Amino acid sequence: MLGIREGIGQRSETVRRSNLSAIVRALHDGGPLSRSELVALTGLTRSAIRGLVGELVGAGLVIEEPAERLGTPGRPSPRVCLVPRSAVVLALEISVDSLAAAAVGMGGEVLDVARVDRARGHSSVDQILFELRQLIDAVAGPGVGRGPIASAGVAVEGIVRREDGFVWMAPNLGWRNVPLGRLIAELLATDAPVSIANDADVGALAERQRGAAVGADNVLFVYGEVGVGGGVIVDGRPLTGVAGYGGEVGHFPINLAGRPCGCGAIGCWETEVGEDALLVRAGRSAGGGRAELREVLAAAEAGSARELAACAEVGRWLGIGLAGFVNLLNPEIVVLGGLYAPAFPFLIGTLLAELDGRTLPAPRALVRVAPATLGVSASLLGAAELAFGPLLDDPVAWAGLREGQVNYATA
Amino acid sequence: MLGIREGIGQRSETVRRSNLSAIVRALHDGGPLSRSELVALTGLTRSAIRGLVGELVGAGLVIEEPAERLGTPGRPSPRVCLVPRSAVVLALEISVDSLAAAAVGMGGEVLDVARVDRARGHSSVDQILFELRQLIDAVAGPGVGRGPIASAGVAVEGIVRREDGFVWMAPNLGWRNVPLGRLIAELLATDAPVSIANDADVGALAERQRGAAVGADNVLFVYGEVGVGGGVIVDGRPLTGVAGYGGEVGHFPINLAGRPCGCGAIGCWETEVGEDALLVRAGRSAGGGRAELREVLAAAEAGSARELAACAEVGRWLGIGLAGFVNLLNPEIVVLGGLYAPAFPFLIGTLLAELDGRTLPAPRALVRVAPATLGVSASLLGAAELAFGPLLDDPVAWAGLREGQVNYATA
Repeated sequence: MLGIREGIGQRSETVRRSNLSAIVRALHDGGPLSRSELVALTGLTRSAIRGLVGELVGAGLVIEEPAERLGTPGRPSPRVCLVPRSAVVLALEISVDSLAAAAVGMGGEVLDVARVDRARGHSSVDQILFELRQLIDAVAGPGVGRGPIASAGVAVEGIVRREDGFVWMAPNLGWRNVPLGRLIAELLATDAPVSIANDADVGALAERQRGAAVGADNVLFVYGEVGVGGGVIVDGRPLTGVAGYGGEVGHFPINLAGRPCGCGAIGCWETEVGEDALLVRAGRSAGGGRAELREVLAAAEAGSARELAACAEVGRWLGIGLAGFVNLLNPEIVVLGGLYAPAFPFLIGTLLAELDGRTLPAPRALVRVAPATLGVSASLLGAAELAFGPLLDDPVAWAGLREGQVNYATA
Repeated sequence: MLGIREGIGQRSETVRRSNLSAIVRALHDGGPLSRSELVALTGLTRSAIRGLVGELVGAGLVIEEPAERLGTPGRPSPRVCLVPRSAVVLALEISVDSLAAAAVGMGGEVLDVARVDRARGHSSVDQILFELRQLIDAVAGPGVGRGPIASAGVAVEGIVRREDGFVWMAPNLGWRNVPLGRLIAELLATDAPVSIANDADVGALAERQRGAAVGADNVLFVYGEVGVGGGVIVDGRPLTGVAGYGGEVGHFPINLAGRPCGCGAIGCWETEVGEDALLVRAGRSAGGGRAELREVLAAAEAGSARELAACAEVGRWLGIGLAGFVNLLNPEIVVLGGLYAPAFPFLIGTLLAELDGRTLPAPRALVRVAPATLGVSASLLGAAELAFGPLLDDPVAWAGLREGQVNYATA
């Protein structure tokens, strides 16, 4: 049951809004559902569902498809499907070695996506905004949806204040105190909502919604790029901390005899398990970027000893840190994203050896380690979900379904 | 507002139960309140509050005291106070070096408490239960409350499955697979609810309810004994993880070149910041126990260089680990309990130096570090709150306030 109220003692418009929101959210999260399934999921009556679905059909947000007969008696219940292009959001990802943009329709359907590798170097904010503009034009030109972009979400490899998208620090980008929320809104010249979050935080949400962690309520997502980020889900809710900075696994002091980190400290976890640590161990130069990373992974795939040993050493340090995090968080799944997804087969052996040796038996017995199934797109898709948030909360407002009347909104 | 419903469309008995529960909980958490304050806090009408308070007075759970005149016009609102002895719970604490028991009345009033130091050594479960029995007889004999013990809560330095109080592992007690929940119920020969939890987890709750972290929603509590436990509160709710094992900060691998830990791994945080690490650094023997710990703290207090240096070194390692945990959790307060409360002045300098150098600036700016104000009693008081849980959830059931009639329950 989704906690939908039938409306006793409530203002009917509030109830209608929350019922429409729950239906749209269920379809967005779970894909097409029959009216009977919506009845079961929401606790609303069959006739209430019929009316609400009718409104959504009238507004062009959903269509009803004839159901397949499954040999059960009675009239088959038609399947209610979202129309992906009825609302399109813009998702952006700002990583140190790459930038990406996607136009994503309702239900999480990726309508278009563009990604470019970037040369390393502390890029100015202006330069990155300029490059993002090219990507945005490529994916979100006129005609992508039936109207303008409904909202935008941005995943960035940095420490973000959620409230206004202010980036305090992005050590590997060389950014400090960047008002990214405002800059992106200016770039898009939009009044639509713009939400900014840490790349690993939203990657965790995406993996839980459509990836490796579907159905899990206690999740640790570790996202390996040049920096190493984490997203933690506790009892089904993101661990944000007091101001949204939670999840920064990459800066746990793990090797006190180790190397300096971009954050200013010594021996942070990311100095042992980040992209540069892998490149250096494989005999390449730190700062080699995505092209060299792909070469290392290809060589490991081909059985080259040096690259396999480099991956194994990263796996060993991953296992040491994960043991500590599993002891702290008692998660049911650890999802490894970013570079760890393609490298997974080459690092999981040493990782599990350390995890087994250092985790308390009770939490160890309950946790599994899996590669991100959304791969390098986890954060980009997470940014899209960030953008869908305000739409799903109030489909009435964005779709023009005003007080009790159907408004056939068009572009 | 406490989210109390006035009852439209609800079964009236359910509503009455939840309203009585909310009033009793507000008084238990916050101390005496006037009827006007209860009206403001609950959103119930003045006449509803009058009726519900009347029921609680009739059952002997609360009394109403005449209000002081504060120079405001009108009739003063009497203050509603819980009667501490109207329900008494038993709180037990099982630490490696000490055992404690307390009889605690409504409102958290400690009616009687007994604590004994124990000689170190992996004590059998039977021996500890035998010693607990003496303590229980000392604090919870006939006459402590107006009836038998209403429920019991146990804080134990181990890894506990919350559901049934099964202790998977208590490395420093030498326990594995102990069905403590069942054993305590047998010891007490009671059908009353018995709840078991990790000592640091309940210590965190106690410090948030009545100690250093009142009002904070994102809290890290670190509890130093022979083992080092942690309790984490995220968005106002305890971080339990998938099975209640969450919060085990003591087994984060922090010094890979370090010492073996009781859990079997090498270099866990507690090998650097636990009681034995302090004793050894101060030139005493590991296993010296509480008596030696008190000597070390007394010597530090008197200005002895060796003991001050030992405390400073523990502070340094505390700061290193806390930097990682603050980066991960973005808490507003870190509360240091157990031995860290009396040692606080001697370790805070080196602790803050490491914390400042290793924490990302954004979460660092938002966190403060404070000693536990409940001191060594945090876990014992947390065990009491664990025991109060079922009573506060349904005062109707335990106080004999049956369906719509007042039952003057007596001992």
